[in-house]
Amino acid sequence: MADPRFYDSTGPLSLAQIGQLASAALVTGADPGTLIHDVAPLDRATAGQISFCDTPRFLGTLQKTQASAVFVTSKLAPSVPQNVVALVCDRPTLAFAKTATRLYPDAGSLWPASQPPVLAIAPTARIGAGTIVAPGAFIGEGVEIGERAVVGPGAVIGRGVQIGHATRIGPHVSISHALIGDNCIVHAGARIGQDGFGYVNSASGHFKIPQLGRVILQDHVEVGANTAIDRGALADTVIGEGTKIDNLVQIGHNNHLGRHCIIVSQVGMSGSCDIEDFVVMGGQVGVADHLKIGKGVQVAARGGVTRSLEAGKVYGGFPAKPVEQWRREVASLSRMGKAGKTKTEAGND
Amino acid sequence: MADPRFYDSTGPLSLAQIGQLASAALVTGADPGTLIHDVAPLDRATAGQISFCDTPRFLGTLQKTQASAVFVTSKLAPSVPQNVVALVCDRPTLAFAKTATRLYPDAGSLWPASQPPVLAIAPTARIGAGTIVAPGAFIGEGVEIGERAVVGPGAVIGRGVQIGHATRIGPHVSISHALIGDNCIVHAGARIGQDGFGYVNSASGHFKIPQLGRVILQDHVEVGANTAIDRGALADTVIGEGTKIDNLVQIGHNNHLGRHCIIVSQVGMSGSCDIEDFVVMGGQVGVADHLKIGKGVQVAARGGVTRSLEAGKVYGGFPAKPVEQWRREVASLSRMGKAGKTKTEAGND
Amino acid sequence: MADPRFYDSTGPLSLAQIGQLASAALVTGADPGTLIHDVAPLDRATAGQISFCDTPRFLGTLQKTQASAVFVTSKLAPSVPQNVVALVCDRPTLAFAKTATRLYPDAGSLWPASQPPVLAIAPTARIGAGTIVAPGAFIGEGVEIGERAVVGPGAVIGRGVQIGHATRIGPHVSISHALIGDNCIVHAGARIGQDGFGYVNSASGHFKIPQLGRVILQDHVEVGANTAIDRGALADTVIGEGTKIDNLVQIGHNNHLGRHCIIVSQVGMSGSCDIEDFVVMGGQVGVADHLKIGKGVQVAARGGVTRSLEAGKVYGGFPAKPVEQWRREVASLSRMGKAGKTKTEAGND
Repeated sequence: MADPRFYDSTGPLSLAQIGQLASAALVTGADPGTLIHDVAPLDRATAGQISFCDTPRFLGTLQKTQASAVFVTSKLAPSVPQNVVALVCDRPTLAFAKTATRLYPDAGSLWPASQPPVLAIAPTARIGAGTIVAPGAFIGEGVEIGERAVVGPGAVIGRGVQIGHATRIGPHVSISHALIGDNCIVHAGARIGQDGFGYVNSASGHFKIPQLGRVILQDHVEVGANTAIDRGALADTVIGEGTKIDNLVQIGHNNHLGRHCIIVSQVGMSGSCDIEDFVVMGGQVGVADHLKIGKGVQVAARGGVTRSLEAGKVYGGFPAKPVEQWRREVASLSRMGKAGKTKTEAGND
Repeated sequence: MADPRFYDSTGPLSLAQIGQLASAALVTGADPGTLIHDVAPLDRATAGQISFCDTPRFLGTLQKTQASAVFVTSKLAPSVPQNVVALVCDRPTLAFAKTATRLYPDAGSLWPASQPPVLAIAPTARIGAGTIVAPGAFIGEGVEIGERAVVGPGAVIGRGVQIGHATRIGPHVSISHALIGDNCIVHAGARIGQDGFGYVNSASGHFKIPQLGRVILQDHVEVGANTAIDRGALADTVIGEGTKIDNLVQIGHNNHLGRHCIIVSQVGMSGSCDIEDFVVMGGQVGVADHLKIGKGVQVAARGGVTRSLEAGKVYGGFPAKPVEQWRREVASLSRMGKAGKTKTEAGND
Repeated sequence: MADPRFYDSTGPLSLAQIGQLASAALVTGADPGTLIHDVAPLDRATAGQISFCDTPRFLGTLQKTQASAVFVTSKLAPSVPQNVVALVCDRPTLAFAKTATRLYPDAGSLWPASQPPVLAIAPTARIGAGTIVAPGAFIGEGVEIGERAVVGPGAVIGRGVQIGHATRIGPHVSISHALIGDNCIVHAGARIGQDGFGYVNSASGHFKIPQLGRVILQDHVEVGANTAIDRGALADTVIGEGTKIDNLVQIGHNNHLGRHCIIVSQVGMSGSCDIEDFVVMGGQVGVADHLKIGKGVQVAARGGVTRSLEAGKVYGGFPAKPVEQWRREVASLSRMGKAGKTKTEAGND
């Protein structure tokens, strides 16, 4: 699954090796010599890949997985398909994270482990005609930049990143593990492609789940100053064509934003949301994870979205609700505050 | 209007050219050869400049404009003064934005189009006695820095920026389109002068409105780490003398902050507000656009300001209201939560 | 008190000099030639140090202070111990801040005043075996970095900073006045060690209180992109072992976070809080100053913490309260909004 432009695998690993590093037991009859080349989510895994399932919620997906092997609890083991090797353990997510870490120990790096940077501009980088690379920029191995683009002073472009034509990268921007379209503008200090925030609890503290996805910026996207867009965990974080993002916005891993959205300053999106086209979010809005925000939804400034929202409607408040209802709540509360005042003045509070 | 230290005009353009690029029709009798040199807002435009009006709200200003030409809807066309050329179109703001884009195609650039940067320190930069420029700093064409100042490692100063005496610019700060006073402190990663967040809807998506103003920091201003201060659209963003701004604050375009304000971390101000002297905003406060915040106002942490606020008072809550009223609302809601508890315990909820 | 790896004192100063610069009067009988070498808080000051007390709240501490001298108001002067020199003035905090400024005029600097940076990598820096320092990094005087660490492109490490083994510093990170443990990850654009946000009012505006503490990151800490962690004022800001901090978080001066905490994106902590082990804060949470958050507390996203919180419990809302109570409040308000709807429909609103 992991894009080889950004990730070097140390694999393959045998099931025997994996069982040992992840403290998982192979089901009887499994061939411990079977080689695993990669990690993948249950629904996308294929031959040579290992996945995991730690909850009956995904039972249906587990029963259809085409992975070569899968970490499961003993309870879920009977549901693993006949031709898939079950690795039984108490903490499938932790076992999976440990395996991914062994396969991709340098997942967050801006350069291949074998090529630590010596020059600011890597010799394998390809830079299009008419593109300006300002002094102080760092451009990694295998980077490709289109024509008439600009890379600002001190910008850092990690290995394998692709940047389209006429895209302008501001000063001090850092981009890694990402594909950037044409005619984008990325303002100063924006952070694109760093690790998502994912951990699994373990006896020795929070165990980091390797983040092996990418960030995709389609054409005509604008990203504000000091905004952060994390790359996906196993999937990609995607910003659709023409979407404009203001300063100091947080976009967590695996979010998928549609086309022509407007995301105002200091919005925070936790992760794995599906934001459809033409969505507008006012300043300081927060969005919980794994939600669907329908086409054309507008969320008023400072709203806190805790549930999926229906297309075409306007929401506000926290938890976010239809804007008219929110306004009535605000009005009710205001009346109560005034009623309370009378009480206070009467000495009853 | 656009300060030539920061912006190069490709103009002038004839009214004929403008009509064509902006899909606007010149009123009968207008001379298509009239030259337009610049764009400006209705109330400040003078001879050789073009402006726009798309709402009857500004009818009074339209009737007194001294622009040479103005984009208007057909409905507003009769209100254009006799000696001003009306360019009639459906979307005056879009037409204006297209014209401004044609006149200033490089509005966001840190260098003149004719002088892409080759050296980290431009030969035309003037740096005062006793000023330290750390390794890795980038200083653009025509920059002027006073005496006894510090420019930190990797800081980026765009063309034409002026920085006063004894001002300290931290590492990785980027400054463009800005005039910075004496004795200021700008902490690491602060972003000063990038594009404001302004678009006008069009058939092909959000059309970017060129941002042609500046940022002015008066003397003794402090700007926190990773804070963003956008430059004005047609006017300036101004931070008054002695005002202190904490980390991760967002100050949108055209805001005007008075003297000796205190703006705590993660505050967000959308744009075009008039914040008077000695205003204090607690952490995570949000302020909607086009508001007036009177002298000495204090807004408690996390308040959301949606209306103009009277001088000398303390506000809190969202929407922000007098702090006593907010406290009563909080107390009322708390009582309801407790009443609700009794119900729940009685099995009625 | 101030760590000499980061701060150069211009002292000592005599009490006569201090009395004059701070506009404070020495009590009768004090020796104006007594030398003061440093500033310190009341409870930690020892011989040769000066402190301050401006409120009867700290009377008990004042009566036991072992400072050589202390700024106090005339009202508090009689409570100063016999062997401690009282310097009487109207504004003890201001007097203290002025003295600290005179002693440490370069408190915020990344280099000693006597050694302005000429090279990107200072000759006195010591870098461990197997550590990669990418092009464009800046490493100050006396920095020590362990083995197998990474310093990303353009990262800036100020004088005297210590970084442990196998710690990875991302691109454009700035670190100063800090001690960083082993196996930490600091993501792009994080700001560690800049001035805390502290001022004292004066006739000429907000007077900056020199920040003379440090930031301590224990082992296995992760800091997200564009997050800011200010150094302490007189004490340290501490992040405990294994604690993970997401992007765009603000951690103000003197906060002490325990081990294995999880701090999600855009959280803001004002200052001087004691956050115990295993605390979890959801996205956009805000925390007021000087609070104690007990072990294992969880605060739901967007909560606003205004009081100390009891260990082991889950809180939400603003002001933060036990999560069940918050949910009941939300439900009550929602019912009111619906009741309000009926009213509105009946034309009564």
